[in-house]
Amino acid sequence: MILLQYFEPETQNWQQIDFSTLPQQLSADARVWINLNDANADELQQVLQHFAITPTMAEDFSRQRHPPKLETQADYSLLILRGYADADFSEYASSAQVNLLYSHNVLISMIKCHNPHLLQQLTPQLIAGHRNTVADWVKQLTLNVAASYLEKLIAFEDELSELEDNMLHRGNDEQMALMMRYRSVLRKINRNLAYQKDIFADALYEENSPLLQQFGRPVVRDFYEKFERLHSMTDMYYDQLSDLVSGYMSTSSHQINDRMKVLTMISSIFIPLTFVAGIYGMNFEYMPELTWPAAYFSVLALMAGGGVAALFWFKHKGWW
Amino acid sequence: MILLQYFEPETQNWQQIDFSTLPQQLSADARVWINLNDANADELQQVLQHFAITPTMAEDFSRQRHPPKLETQADYSLLILRGYADADFSEYASSAQVNLLYSHNVLISMIKCHNPHLLQQLTPQLIAGHRNTVADWVKQLTLNVAASYLEKLIAFEDELSELEDNMLHRGNDEQMALMMRYRSVLRKINRNLAYQKDIFADALYEENSPLLQQFGRPVVRDFYEKFERLHSMTDMYYDQLSDLVSGYMSTSSHQINDRMKVLTMISSIFIPLTFVAGIYGMNFEYMPELTWPAAYFSVLALMAGGGVAALFWFKHKGWW
Amino acid sequence: MILLQYFEPETQNWQQIDFSTLPQQLSADARVWINLNDANADELQQVLQHFAITPTMAEDFSRQRHPPKLETQADYSLLILRGYADADFSEYASSAQVNLLYSHNVLISMIKCHNPHLLQQLTPQLIAGHRNTVADWVKQLTLNVAASYLEKLIAFEDELSELEDNMLHRGNDEQMALMMRYRSVLRKINRNLAYQKDIFADALYEENSPLLQQFGRPVVRDFYEKFERLHSMTDMYYDQLSDLVSGYMSTSSHQINDRMKVLTMISSIFIPLTFVAGIYGMNFEYMPELTWPAAYFSVLALMAGGGVAALFWFKHKGWW
Amino acid sequence: MILLQYFEPETQNWQQIDFSTLPQQLSADARVWINLNDANADELQQVLQHFAITPTMAEDFSRQRHPPKLETQADYSLLILRGYADADFSEYASSAQVNLLYSHNVLISMIKCHNPHLLQQLTPQLIAGHRNTVADWVKQLTLNVAASYLEKLIAFEDELSELEDNMLHRGNDEQMALMMRYRSVLRKINRNLAYQKDIFADALYEENSPLLQQFGRPVVRDFYEKFERLHSMTDMYYDQLSDLVSGYMSTSSHQINDRMKVLTMISSIFIPLTFVAGIYGMNFEYMPELTWPAAYFSVLALMAGGGVAALFWFKHKGWW
Amino acid sequence: MILLQYFEPETQNWQQIDFSTLPQQLSADARVWINLNDANADELQQVLQHFAITPTMAEDFSRQRHPPKLETQADYSLLILRGYADADFSEYASSAQVNLLYSHNVLISMIKCHNPHLLQQLTPQLIAGHRNTVADWVKQLTLNVAASYLEKLIAFEDELSELEDNMLHRGNDEQMALMMRYRSVLRKINRNLAYQKDIFADALYEENSPLLQQFGRPVVRDFYEKFERLHSMTDMYYDQLSDLVSGYMSTSSHQINDRMKVLTMISSIFIPLTFVAGIYGMNFEYMPELTWPAAYFSVLALMAGGGVAALFWFKHKGWW
Ligand SMILES: [Mg+2]
Ligand SMILES: [Mg+2]
Ligand SMILES: [Mg+2]
Ligand SMILES: [Mg+2]
Ligand SMILES: [Mg+2]
Ligand SMILES: [Mg+2]
Ligand SMILES: [Mg+2]
Ligand SMILES: [Mg+2]
Ligand SMILES: [Mg+2]
Ligand SMILES: [Mg+2]
Ligand SMILES: [Mg+2]
Ligand SMILES: [Mg+2]
Ligand SMILES: [Mg+2]
Ligand SMILES: [Mg+2]
Ligand SMILES: [Mg+2]
Ligand SMILES: [Mg+2]
Ligand SMILES: [Mg+2]
Ligand SMILES: [Mg+2]
Ligand SMILES: [Mg+2]
Ligand SMILES: [Mg+2]
Ligand SMILES: [Mg+2]
Ligand SMILES: [Mg+2]
Ligand SMILES: [Mg+2]
Ligand SMILES: [Mg+2]
Ligand SMILES: [Mg+2]
Ligand SMILES: [Mg+2]
Ligand SMILES: [Mg+2]
Ligand SMILES: [Mg+2]
Ligand SMILES: [Mg+2]
Ligand SMILES: [Mg+2]
Ligand SMILES: [Mg+2]
Repeated sequence: MILLQYFEPETQNWQQIDFSTLPQQLSADARVWINLNDANADELQQVLQHFAITPTMAEDFSRQRHPPKLETQADYSLLILRGYADADFSEYASSAQVNLLYSHNVLISMIKCHNPHLLQQLTPQLIAGHRNTVADWVKQLTLNVAASYLEKLIAFEDELSELEDNMLHRGNDEQMALMMRYRSVLRKINRNLAYQKDIFADALYEENSPLLQQFGRPVVRDFYEKFERLHSMTDMYYDQLSDLVSGYMSTSSHQINDRMKVLTMISSIFIPLTFVAGIYGMNFEYMPELTWPAAYFSVLALMAGGGVAALFWFKHKGWW
Repeated sequence: MILLQYFEPETQNWQQIDFSTLPQQLSADARVWINLNDANADELQQVLQHFAITPTMAEDFSRQRHPPKLETQADYSLLILRGYADADFSEYASSAQVNLLYSHNVLISMIKCHNPHLLQQLTPQLIAGHRNTVADWVKQLTLNVAASYLEKLIAFEDELSELEDNMLHRGNDEQMALMMRYRSVLRKINRNLAYQKDIFADALYEENSPLLQQFGRPVVRDFYEKFERLHSMTDMYYDQLSDLVSGYMSTSSHQINDRMKVLTMISSIFIPLTFVAGIYGMNFEYMPELTWPAAYFSVLALMAGGGVAALFWFKHKGWW
Repeated sequence: MILLQYFEPETQNWQQIDFSTLPQQLSADARVWINLNDANADELQQVLQHFAITPTMAEDFSRQRHPPKLETQADYSLLILRGYADADFSEYASSAQVNLLYSHNVLISMIKCHNPHLLQQLTPQLIAGHRNTVADWVKQLTLNVAASYLEKLIAFEDELSELEDNMLHRGNDEQMALMMRYRSVLRKINRNLAYQKDIFADALYEENSPLLQQFGRPVVRDFYEKFERLHSMTDMYYDQLSDLVSGYMSTSSHQINDRMKVLTMISSIFIPLTFVAGIYGMNFEYMPELTWPAAYFSVLALMAGGGVAALFWFKHKGWW
Repeated sequence: MILLQYFEPETQNWQQIDFSTLPQQLSADARVWINLNDANADELQQVLQHFAITPTMAEDFSRQRHPPKLETQADYSLLILRGYADADFSEYASSAQVNLLYSHNVLISMIKCHNPHLLQQLTPQLIAGHRNTVADWVKQLTLNVAASYLEKLIAFEDELSELEDNMLHRGNDEQMALMMRYRSVLRKINRNLAYQKDIFADALYEENSPLLQQFGRPVVRDFYEKFERLHSMTDMYYDQLSDLVSGYMSTSSHQINDRMKVLTMISSIFIPLTFVAGIYGMNFEYMPELTWPAAYFSVLALMAGGGVAALFWFKHKGWW
Repeated sequence: MILLQYFEPETQNWQQIDFSTLPQQLSADARVWINLNDANADELQQVLQHFAITPTMAEDFSRQRHPPKLETQADYSLLILRGYADADFSEYASSAQVNLLYSHNVLISMIKCHNPHLLQQLTPQLIAGHRNTVADWVKQLTLNVAASYLEKLIAFEDELSELEDNMLHRGNDEQMALMMRYRSVLRKINRNLAYQKDIFADALYEENSPLLQQFGRPVVRDFYEKFERLHSMTDMYYDQLSDLVSGYMSTSSHQINDRMKVLTMISSIFIPLTFVAGIYGMNFEYMPELTWPAAYFSVLALMAGGGVAALFWFKHKGWW
């Protein structure tokens, strides 16, 4: 299904029209928004051919899964973004895919997002009696994409701080598994953010960047800084989780060592002594020591001596 | 064996001819495809000399194992690519080696691939009555090389997601060994993809790149983005496997610690007590305590006291 | 609350005036410092609109939490810095946020800092009868921000050196947890310092950087070197802590190995022997060995032989 | 000892002459090769002064241990290379040091190599009646240096593949020690290869590189690609060995965990039970339970109950 | 104390004069060396003001602890270097701080070094009747700074090689602690060397670098190569130590696994058997099995059967 909103300059009004009735030549004041969220492959082809989109751009726009990118040819720019559609970082179903094709007065959008709230935020707002510029729409969508990460990252900071307090002293396998999931999700969004950051960083360095012409340098710089900050935050949170994992392992290792020390000392002292006691608990008829009067206390003294000697040996080895 | 397909401009038809009958001067409309997959060293030399290929290019083209590269001299470009020929990433036999030498109307190819299905995809398609351009062939081969990785990487994503769910809770040595094999294979293809990505990245930055002249910037950019995406995916999957390995080790370490705690507490309490019981199980004739009426219950009480004291000591040390 | 200090060129005196009485046009010799530390959102808007600050700059200036940045538009520069407000690196509450908007004769500042001593250092000093230049104020604040890190880093060097001496021999879980907190804090300030270092590094490379015009190259270079040194120190301290963590784990691992060796040898020798003794301690009526005269000494000899054989086996395996 | 080979243009013949008889001015067609492999310090000085080599170049050329470099001043270029002189990567005695000083008709070489076969390959070949160009000699030596690594690296691939198969299942300390030696050697040659790769990479980027003038761009590019490939292979093999080490450690950790589980469960069940049996094995005269008729079976039942309870507790904790 | 050596062009002689008698204008042929090693803060200020050193340079020069840097303003260059003052890398007290301010005929030096031998090497040598140029002095000092690292690094190579041989087989905690100290020291000097390397690398890339004018490109390149080599050596040694640490940990882990296998098998077999023996060692009056004639041998057979079954189970699990 092709949803087409048309702003007629004469009446200054937005109206939903059929794609086939769209004038071939648009006046400079006209605005068109074509929503292809629910379009099938044929409708997609029809729209892309109508605006003479080149094959490589058409192919990328049609994908429901393509990393963020910007490409400009002739009048049209293709901007692909990815928003964060899940509730937090403990589970990552899929990103919101935002495919935008736009000229100065036409916006063609195809957005896939399993989170209806975010999908609504990623929908251009039409204002009756007012001619939105296409650049304003694209700007708003870009800022909302950035915001979809930021709110979860800010919330994650507290979560991480709590994990740090917990892990080293009372960590358990559930928390460990949660941290592993967090790391996996942060890695994936870090990659998406790196692509998006690079789109705007490249624009700032290029002389005749189309983005600079469409939005002006301050806005592009703002886009860049927002995605750079998000990227840098995911980098840092990921690295802090990794530090936690390694710290947790070090602490475990040290505690194993401590426990092993206790276990080894106790076992080394009492297992041989128990063996000696076991010998004199045997029921052989002829065991001459059993009848010696001083035997019991001699054996007790020998055992005590052996135990003390072992303690000194462990002391000498620096075990405590 | 030299397989030569010749497109005669007059008849507009493809025909398989003998290499020795190839006209020395080709008209601009003629097309030649020389398939050297089954050629021996002499035939290889013969063809390369016929087209006056320079020594360094000839040497690289002749190798059955050479990393991906692009080199252009005079009319001829040498493009070496590597496709992924195995079924998945659990075992890596060898890459598909794609050596292409081409001018605007001659394509010389030597392709080594143990997977017949991929080999067939890496074979230029001749269309009767139609003059393929050499650039179209090379473009098609390049896209098929990229596709040979992408399909396995997409499938691997699910495999990885399953591994993540399994490893932390029910991981075993077979899964660990599988992950190690995956990491090894991903490392190897990451290197091949880095070479291929760089070929097209370099072309995009160079002013007079032959690739840009042969294919146009949009197509070269598309090549670049495809290989960059593949490279970035292998990077991420490799890193996620590494995260899994380290998380698995952390979890193991923590569980060892937990078990060690139980073992040490139980051993530390009961091994000394068993020793005491062993003492009074000895059969010496003269053991005065044995005859004391209260001895048994005193010893029981002492043992209980020792056990409780040990528990308090472990509690004090924060072991539980 | 808007605190406004005004330097009247005629009287050469500083006076606190009401924002509404500020002349619309300032003479070149006038100076204005507007302190918005305690301003509410409306007052903030009022001031920013009065000086016609552009929206993206106004938005960044208004944030109580924004990474360090520099942006210049028309007459005004926005400089955001972050100082270290806590006593040392064992606990990190929050950074001092220093938001500065300035032209050649107006400074608008909004500083959030939970440490009153640092807050006082980050407050411009007014000298009666003397016209401070705005650049001097900004320079002094920047140097004080750098100093807020340096003093803690210098003190940390000794702390780290002590940790190094302690950890490998007498490390405990409290020290480990402290090191983990240090790493976490150093990571966070490393990121803040990287942003601040890059502000001045970029200025040194840019041809017409506003910072160079405002402060001169030697001062900007000094800023850069100070933040670069701080960044490099946090990098190094972080890495040294990581080395300590890994060294601690290696040492633990080796000591576990040593203890395991002792435990395994003692257990492997005495547990089977104790079993043998236990057999002959059973009270079955018909146990023919018990009545053999040589049984006791034979069993003793067999046990000694078994023990010695085990020792040789361990020796052969290279366990000691 | 100075070995000097002189190609007299008139006679078109190579002859070994004494250094003192070398004409001060060489004709453009003459060729000189001075082999200083066995020269002492005085002879070295004598030759370097004769050709007016500048001090910094003379100092570097004279070193028997200097990292690879290229330096050109006036007519002379100094090229220092390092070849791989040992049989494989399990032991690294020392690299082959190849110090070359050359102009268009003079080659001064000093080569230190403990492997006579490689030394022979690194010796320029004189062909009677034929005037070698100096550039051909240098090219041949450079290719042989590269080949000295490649053959060992190709062989190492199979060795590594075998190690991968072995380590995870049947790894032992000898294989671990071998892997550590491999890593150490690969690190060292990786550094040497990085220097050599950079020499040719720099030449390709420089406008008026002497190397480009001496050898032509295709040959320099071929040098670069050969060393880049070697460098990238050592990088990858090193990283694969590191992956193996970490995988081996993970597997060990997991197996320790598994064994610890068995040990802890068996010990936790049977050690307390053995203690109970030990209590009723004591020989006190007054132990009322011993005379109760049902005592034995009650104790047996209690012990069985305790064992089963422990099993349920372990089951509940998810130990199996 | 200000030590001032003055070379009077007329007499061609060096003489120690008082700072107050230094002529305000120096002739181009005059040379001045001012040694401020033992100067107090006032004397320092006096000298710096006399030569009109700018504030940022004066502040950096005055520091007894400042990372290496180069800064040039007007006639004067500030070069700060750091030498290695300790005997080897097992303990790092502090670096030799070399602060140099120089013009073409004035050298002001302030050197702090706790090693008298190195301090002497870092002192400019005056030659009677000979006019040293300032650039020669600075060159000599720079080369001696580089040499202070090189000799220790060369010696360290053998030490490291010995450590490699020892660690994997007979490593102990003292060697581990030594390796940790080495890593810590190498990290610190690596940072100092990076700063020094970058000083000369920057000079080689800059068009009008003052260093190139003062020393000439070959000498600056030689400085660069020397510090680059030192930096690269510390990098490699550090990494090799890290490899050793991780290899040591892997080996420990594997040996723990091996010992755990032995311990678990022996314990799992004999602890339950000992429990069974303990049961029949109890002294209950009514234990029917004790009187059965075949009981003893049945129990022995059952125990043997249980032990063999356990062995098969371990075999089945692949434990040996
Ligand atoms: Mg990324
Ligand atoms: Mg960043
Ligand atoms: Mg980043
Ligand atoms: Mg990243
Ligand atoms: Mg980081
Ligand atoms: Mg990293
Ligand atoms: Mg790569
Ligand atoms: Mg990439
Ligand atoms: Mg990447
Ligand atoms: Mg990579
Ligand atoms: Mg990554
Ligand atoms: Mg990496
Ligand atoms: Mg950072
Ligand atoms: Mg830095
Ligand atoms: Mg740094
Ligand atoms: Mg950093
Ligand atoms: Mg570092
Ligand atoms: Mg790092
Ligand atoms: Mg790193
Ligand atoms: Mg390297
Ligand atoms: Mg490479
Ligand atoms: Mg590389
Ligand atoms: Mg790598
Ligand atoms: Mg490297
Ligand atoms: Mg790396
Ligand atoms: Mg460094
Ligand atoms: Mg280097
Ligand atoms: Mg380096
Ligand atoms: Mg470094
Ligand atoms: Mg390295
Ligand atoms: Mg590194």
